[in-house]
Amino acid sequence: MSSMQPRLLEVRKNVLKQNDIMARVLRERFRAQGTFVVSLVSSPGTGKTTLLENILCLLRGQFRVAALVGDLATENDAARLARSQAPVKQITTGTLCHLEAAMVQNALEGWDTGPLDFLFIENVGNLVCPSSYDLGENLRFVLLSVTEGEDKPLKYPTIFNSADVAVITKLDLAAATEFNIPIALANIQAVRPGMKVFQVSAKSGAGMAEFIHFLSEQRSALRSAVAI
Amino acid sequence: MSSMQPRLLEVRKNVLKQNDIMARVLRERFRAQGTFVVSLVSSPGTGKTTLLENILCLLRGQFRVAALVGDLATENDAARLARSQAPVKQITTGTLCHLEAAMVQNALEGWDTGPLDFLFIENVGNLVCPSSYDLGENLRFVLLSVTEGEDKPLKYPTIFNSADVAVITKLDLAAATEFNIPIALANIQAVRPGMKVFQVSAKSGAGMAEFIHFLSEQRSALRSAVAI
Repeated sequence: MSSMQPRLLEVRKNVLKQNDIMARVLRERFRAQGTFVVSLVSSPGTGKTTLLENILCLLRGQFRVAALVGDLATENDAARLARSQAPVKQITTGTLCHLEAAMVQNALEGWDTGPLDFLFIENVGNLVCPSSYDLGENLRFVLLSVTEGEDKPLKYPTIFNSADVAVITKLDLAAATEFNIPIALANIQAVRPGMKVFQVSAKSGAGMAEFIHFLSEQRSALRSAVAI
Repeated sequence: MSSMQPRLLEVRKNVLKQNDIMARVLRERFRAQGTFVVSLVSSPGTGKTTLLENILCLLRGQFRVAALVGDLATENDAARLARSQAPVKQITTGTLCHLEAAMVQNALEGWDTGPLDFLFIENVGNLVCPSSYDLGENLRFVLLSVTEGEDKPLKYPTIFNSADVAVITKLDLAAATEFNIPIALANIQAVRPGMKVFQVSAKSGAGMAEFIHFLSEQRSALRSAVAI
């Protein structure tokens, strides 16, 4: 087994390098057209699609929004997100445990994303693989649901390190699951000191207004920076 | 990107072939010493460690049991499982999203597993990567918690197909999460017709007696088959 590792690492390095080149192309395209791009990563079942459905609904009145959503199989998530009336495209990855920049590029082909204010990218449910792949996004959110336990940042440090902002989801279930919020926050800070953390419930709406305000502010901040 | 794929696939095929050879060595060793080996796969936070802690406690009176537990980082799970008084070893995988047969082999080195009746292997929390790696186990359980949603079998068909038995966990939270059990069961059967499914709550103990009885029966069945 060990004799295979160097060759595998070398190939993996090349794949990642190719991905970085493509991500740079995407990032330049999004910057030029003024589209703010946000990606979401988490375990399966953390609530990425439900949160995203709420985000699309809440932003849609004021902004032009769209979403790309990755899964190994099924177009269930795209169908759910389409209820928000925002344009949505599904990317099915087959057996791959993450999205890559080239898949985002392919999905955008023939789609006029120029007028978009926000593009959201929901990654495959996975706390390991997506961390290595830059998708050209402006911000990456890592989600952690109260049903998963407080220890996940310590057990999956790389994905928390590769993300910009953490979101604790399913806050309405915190009591039923005996989730200890101070411990979870301490674990996030232990892995990534200073990381901004939101606490939301897409079901009750708790924390959503603050979260939406943050998104809108981040977009404005970037646009001013680019204008200067 | 696409030019890299054939080389990557070729290397990956070799890695998997090496893994299968090592898994066969492990399986032969376990068979010869009469150890029944069970592995657990699921998303992060589905409750593998809690279920395994209960299994070890419930089997320990009657059988010699031990566990190996895989994680990217931390030895938290091994510490939790050690409370069951059973021998436990942690395997930390670094950035790898799954266990491989060679890691199991390394972890067993210098450990006299000969007298063991049961060895449990808890994989890294991941619904994608572990599906391709045979660990020499007799039975592979895939866990699905009620907090993750009913659609996971459809979205991660490969891991459900590579497992032998499904276990729905955190049954005590089914009402709070509005989990629809008949839909979940139908989705499991759609992906893998005839798959045996247990429904348990490690917290309330619901379904645990039946589950433990099944493990003990499976071990006896294999031993009789080997004896013939």
